[in-house]
Amino acid sequence: MRHLIILSLLIISLITTSHSLYVKNEPKISNETQECIDCHTAIHPGIVSSWEKSRHSKITPAEAIKKEALERRVSFSSLEERLKNVVVGCYECHSLNTENHKDAFEHYGYKINVIVSPNDCAVCHPVEAEQYSKNLMAFAHTNLVENKLYRDLMKSVNNPHTFEKGRIEIKGNNKLTEYESCLYCHGTKIEVKGFETRETQLGEAIFPILEGWPNQGVGRINPDGSRGSCSACHTRHEFSIEVARKPYTCAECHKGPDVPAFKVYEVSKHGNIFSSEYHKYNFDEVPWKIGKDFSVPTCATCHVSLITSPDGKEVIAERTHQMNDRLSWRLFGVPYAQPHPIKPDLSDVKNSAGLPLIVELTGEPVRQFVISKDEQRKRNQAMKNICNNCHSVSWVNGHFERLENTIKETNSLTLEATKILTEFWKNGFAKGLPQNQNIFDEKIERVWTSIWLMYANSTRFASAMAGGGDYGVFADGRYQLTEKLYEMSEMLEMKKKMKKSQSNKD
Amino acid sequence: MRHLIILSLLIISLITTSHSLYVKNEPKISNETQECIDCHTAIHPGIVSSWEKSRHSKITPAEAIKKEALERRVSFSSLEERLKNVVVGCYECHSLNTENHKDAFEHYGYKINVIVSPNDCAVCHPVEAEQYSKNLMAFAHTNLVENKLYRDLMKSVNNPHTFEKGRIEIKGNNKLTEYESCLYCHGTKIEVKGFETRETQLGEAIFPILEGWPNQGVGRINPDGSRGSCSACHTRHEFSIEVARKPYTCAECHKGPDVPAFKVYEVSKHGNIFSSEYHKYNFDEVPWKIGKDFSVPTCATCHVSLITSPDGKEVIAERTHQMNDRLSWRLFGVPYAQPHPIKPDLSDVKNSAGLPLIVELTGEPVRQFVISKDEQRKRNQAMKNICNNCHSVSWVNGHFERLENTIKETNSLTLEATKILTEFWKNGFAKGLPQNQNIFDEKIERVWTSIWLMYANSTRFASAMAGGGDYGVFADGRYQLTEKLYEMSEMLEMKKKMKKSQSNKD
Amino acid sequence: MRHLIILSLLIISLITTSHSLYVKNEPKISNETQECIDCHTAIHPGIVSSWEKSRHSKITPAEAIKKEALERRVSFSSLEERLKNVVVGCYECHSLNTENHKDAFEHYGYKINVIVSPNDCAVCHPVEAEQYSKNLMAFAHTNLVENKLYRDLMKSVNNPHTFEKGRIEIKGNNKLTEYESCLYCHGTKIEVKGFETRETQLGEAIFPILEGWPNQGVGRINPDGSRGSCSACHTRHEFSIEVARKPYTCAECHKGPDVPAFKVYEVSKHGNIFSSEYHKYNFDEVPWKIGKDFSVPTCATCHVSLITSPDGKEVIAERTHQMNDRLSWRLFGVPYAQPHPIKPDLSDVKNSAGLPLIVELTGEPVRQFVISKDEQRKRNQAMKNICNNCHSVSWVNGHFERLENTIKETNSLTLEATKILTEFWKNGFAKGLPQNQNIFDEKIERVWTSIWLMYANSTRFASAMAGGGDYGVFADGRYQLTEKLYEMSEMLEMKKKMKKSQSNKD
Repeated sequence: MRHLIILSLLIISLITTSHSLYVKNEPKISNETQECIDCHTAIHPGIVSSWEKSRHSKITPAEAIKKEALERRVSFSSLEERLKNVVVGCYECHSLNTENHKDAFEHYGYKINVIVSPNDCAVCHPVEAEQYSKNLMAFAHTNLVENKLYRDLMKSVNNPHTFEKGRIEIKGNNKLTEYESCLYCHGTKIEVKGFETRETQLGEAIFPILEGWPNQGVGRINPDGSRGSCSACHTRHEFSIEVARKPYTCAECHKGPDVPAFKVYEVSKHGNIFSSEYHKYNFDEVPWKIGKDFSVPTCATCHVSLITSPDGKEVIAERTHQMNDRLSWRLFGVPYAQPHPIKPDLSDVKNSAGLPLIVELTGEPVRQFVISKDEQRKRNQAMKNICNNCHSVSWVNGHFERLENTIKETNSLTLEATKILTEFWKNGFAKGLPQNQNIFDEKIERVWTSIWLMYANSTRFASAMAGGGDYGVFADGRYQLTEKLYEMSEMLEMKKKMKKSQSNKD
Repeated sequence: MRHLIILSLLIISLITTSHSLYVKNEPKISNETQECIDCHTAIHPGIVSSWEKSRHSKITPAEAIKKEALERRVSFSSLEERLKNVVVGCYECHSLNTENHKDAFEHYGYKINVIVSPNDCAVCHPVEAEQYSKNLMAFAHTNLVENKLYRDLMKSVNNPHTFEKGRIEIKGNNKLTEYESCLYCHGTKIEVKGFETRETQLGEAIFPILEGWPNQGVGRINPDGSRGSCSACHTRHEFSIEVARKPYTCAECHKGPDVPAFKVYEVSKHGNIFSSEYHKYNFDEVPWKIGKDFSVPTCATCHVSLITSPDGKEVIAERTHQMNDRLSWRLFGVPYAQPHPIKPDLSDVKNSAGLPLIVELTGEPVRQFVISKDEQRKRNQAMKNICNNCHSVSWVNGHFERLENTIKETNSLTLEATKILTEFWKNGFAKGLPQNQNIFDEKIERVWTSIWLMYANSTRFASAMAGGGDYGVFADGRYQLTEKLYEMSEMLEMKKKMKKSQSNKD
Repeated sequence: MRHLIILSLLIISLITTSHSLYVKNEPKISNETQECIDCHTAIHPGIVSSWEKSRHSKITPAEAIKKEALERRVSFSSLEERLKNVVVGCYECHSLNTENHKDAFEHYGYKINVIVSPNDCAVCHPVEAEQYSKNLMAFAHTNLVENKLYRDLMKSVNNPHTFEKGRIEIKGNNKLTEYESCLYCHGTKIEVKGFETRETQLGEAIFPILEGWPNQGVGRINPDGSRGSCSACHTRHEFSIEVARKPYTCAECHKGPDVPAFKVYEVSKHGNIFSSEYHKYNFDEVPWKIGKDFSVPTCATCHVSLITSPDGKEVIAERTHQMNDRLSWRLFGVPYAQPHPIKPDLSDVKNSAGLPLIVELTGEPVRQFVISKDEQRKRNQAMKNICNNCHSVSWVNGHFERLENTIKETNSLTLEATKILTEFWKNGFAKGLPQNQNIFDEKIERVWTSIWLMYANSTRFASAMAGGGDYGVFADGRYQLTEKLYEMSEMLEMKKKMKKSQSNKD
């Protein structure tokens, strides 16, 4: 009997709730956005329906800011009046800061931008945009393209090559190739090259001509001068927090042999449980409650999201879009793993050999550019605080002790490889630093590059992420690393023998 | 109050609907099929229960053809009376065209075939079978096995090898190996080698002895002379459209380094959203409504399925089982990417060097065998019409401009590699075309092969599928391609030095 | 009308059932466990909430043993009284056999162990623990670390390397590296190195200092002397049968190029259907009913689980934790595939060359250590009995005929590679067995190792698992295997030429 009463109460409460929800969530679409939708529903049904599924289409900034502090997804302190009480539609985002947008154009009576930049998103999410700008990711374009050394790697990978007179030559360059290779993830520089008139379903219209478009790379240089692309992770036009929190988003750029974070995750215990059980998790909740909304971490859990205790009351980790907050080491991106750099902009770094690196060729960090040991300890502790919710102290300490060992070990193996390469250069068996030549355009140089860029990186990720199965051993790990070391040494020996045999003859 | 009324109405309508559905869907199983089921439920419970979950078990052809045009999954214009009003069971499929089936046999009073061929499926799905027959896939067996050049590749990969007198020799052949390597995807030729009597749970029975069985390759040669295997994608015995539309089906054959479509998809923006959100999509609906049933495309969306606007009324893409309808380029399968071939049967093609290729060794297409630029434009536009539902014109054009650039770029790198290989042959450092020898059975020839078959292909797929992360760079992409180019050039240089050193001595 | 009555009856029965379930399942937590939870809910919310989701937290051993034989998940015949009528909580597992546990310590008045070993799990699951102990997996640590030959492979992969005087030397060793590379999967030896006092949230406490911790490898040597770690597959602290049955669990250790079972599964027809449809399956049921709970097998289906007919009555496969019950061949782990070894402990095996292998260097098995052909037939038939539920006899036989062919084929290619390597050693071009040196620390030795450890293994897995797409061809399969064979032969030829050129001069 008691149950029947409960059942009745449940039904009644359901009805009431759904009624009040209905009233509360009736979307208040601005007139401008409604006009966009009226045409684009036919032209771009996919875009419109994605947006309709988004939170942006269902809540106004005024409602969003009223939530409990821990439940809030916006961080503005003040907001233009016109934006407050309408949902976040086409016009609300594409019409911001047009005065700074070189891609702004007149479109049926409105001035709009093609590209919505982090600067624009910052109108409602200023804290997140500010944090993000302190990431290496925000400088992913700049730190690659404006680094002379890495430019050489780009050239040897992307530029046209010709075989003439018995030799390979790198000739010319190829911007379109760069856009879809390195800069697909690092971000292009988007430039407005003029405007053109195009015939559309609704007659003639004018559009900007964009160089470097499309692109959603993390360090994109936008036509308003800002850096980054929020849609790299918060995919247009649903901007789903579920998508951003699932590891498939990070996998877009973090799956290759140079940075195999997703592959390592997949075969880790965390990844196994995620793949097996994620259908039981709730990826939409803010704050994200450990044990209640999820059992194992995804990338976002440890690196970005606001995490609380199961009851949603105690903060375990603050939300941060400056991911290096909890990163004491920079595991990849340079020949040797090292303490994290102090600033995200690395355009002015230089080591004692004059190379634009925060590390010496012998593996020592250039101290003035990297964080102190104290700061490393602090960041490491912040990360451990998350681990400790599911693991004992000795488990967590054991894990990080191995990571530090692996960093030393892989740095040391890279150093031995560098010694061999130096012998090649010194003996004139290859042309590199001493000859002031590209150090990535000969076979032996690539063997050396693979040692640190692929095998040492894979090994370190397998170590850092608490068990990456074979990625530290047989799958681009230590097995390949040591094999390449043997190969380098034996190639050197053969070169010497051939030289001797040659000189003997002379 | 209004809600209580709505709730009541809902309950009543649910009851009514379920009642009428029940009546409508009561399966009308033929007597013959019932007899099959009576025995095979015990012998093959897995097969029977799969079929019970299938649409085939729940609807008759007569009911299926009565649906609205866009909702129809059958395409016959006439049908044998006996098949019309029973569901599509064991006997309905396995008893078709027995006169043409060399694998037909007497089984407890019925004449049935082991293999259901595209010809048999065409009884209800003639349009799809006809379209499929115009695919390169339908000729995947023939175009491989009957091409002298590719036969040489097969030999060097599959045949027994011996090391004798200091040399590797390819000896004999190994059919069983071929069946499970190349022909697993390309399809075997299934031949009836006789009949045998076997003891079964129900006493003695006679069965055909099949060579090349089991196999579900896309270009299978069936015992009725037809080509292909519908179950390659429409997996027996559930024949689920959900399975066919999910990318895991294509991945069976399109994940290797020679054709990494699925790997590229996984790390593309499309693939990320699919992996994160597909639990919210509806993969069973016909027509498949953009924005309503799904938000991002799978392989089937762009290449096969009938796609409509969200309301199901406007056709965005017609269903086609001739996938090349929207393919202007053939990205893989030959040393150079090129315009798509005109006919799927390539058994009579020849280039100016006499090789069975639709491309010259210098990269030029053999014009008489490939589609015109006009036809390329037409097909490309058909594909763009799909993209444009979620992307702006400049986005889509920017994408395809890059693809064309990548095709030129990778073809050009392949040409340089081919020049180096030609030097090897000319100097007698390897034995290939000039010596009328297998061009895949020496180390240098394999380095060359990997350049186009793996690294150029990966790079092109990464480009074609709108962002394949590292598959165009560090994961079997341009990094590996250029490294192999350096390796080829340096190997040539060393061979020349050694020759000189040798001849100096003499 | 009839439907309304049915509906009412349904509601009533739901209420009744949920009521009785509620009463039955009210967890009876022991006082000791309650005390653990009282503190650890705050300290380790993730652990506590995982356990709360587990079956262990909801049912007592006394209730579990009363289930129908086929539904039972426990296998004890007698049990300590104190454990019978409480759910299986923290204290119930961590307090077992403390007298044998070197990691036992006093913790707030209780003596508990850090590590729960298979010996402890055996209190309720004795049959499973006993079966597991007969697996090669249980000896994965021992068979690796105590095998002189494999120790050499470990050294060449894990130990520090230096480049001095023109040569690579392997120097010292690195335990921490071993723990996270080979031993991550094979299992560490966990040793208690003393005890330490640590400051905790609740004041000072004492904890054991563990060497080799954390680890969940399958052949772990535990502080109580037992072997293995149940949590390798039955992940702490939810111990979910769903997780154990999904293939992601096996993937943790079986995805690398040396044993790519998961990668092969993913692109097999089985794997495709699993990925596409698993959301419709029931992974929690015991017994696991074919056709009802699932349509296609995961790893567990064929190798471990209790499988019955759709009605749950007829046993198709008995549950076994001795996976080799149905394995006639050992496909990987030694240079040549061979009949399965008789005993799991291989510490005393030796071939005629004195090497600790159950196979000769020529590929012949050492008969005294491997199972007979009769036993092979028996095990193969046990496996076929599972296949036959969804496949015809000729399909299944055709499949296994190919596997046997592939074993012969890959063994034969490995033999040819071994012949070439032997030539290197004989001529002094490399230092190996004749010189009593590590056979894994030179480039040519690694090429040979990759042939069997990666390419032959991949090819065999692709064959064994009924279609692994490219893993038998272009993805670490026959293409790479034969390429390496050409490379070895050509390297030998060059070495010979260089030697001749050298000796000519002298």
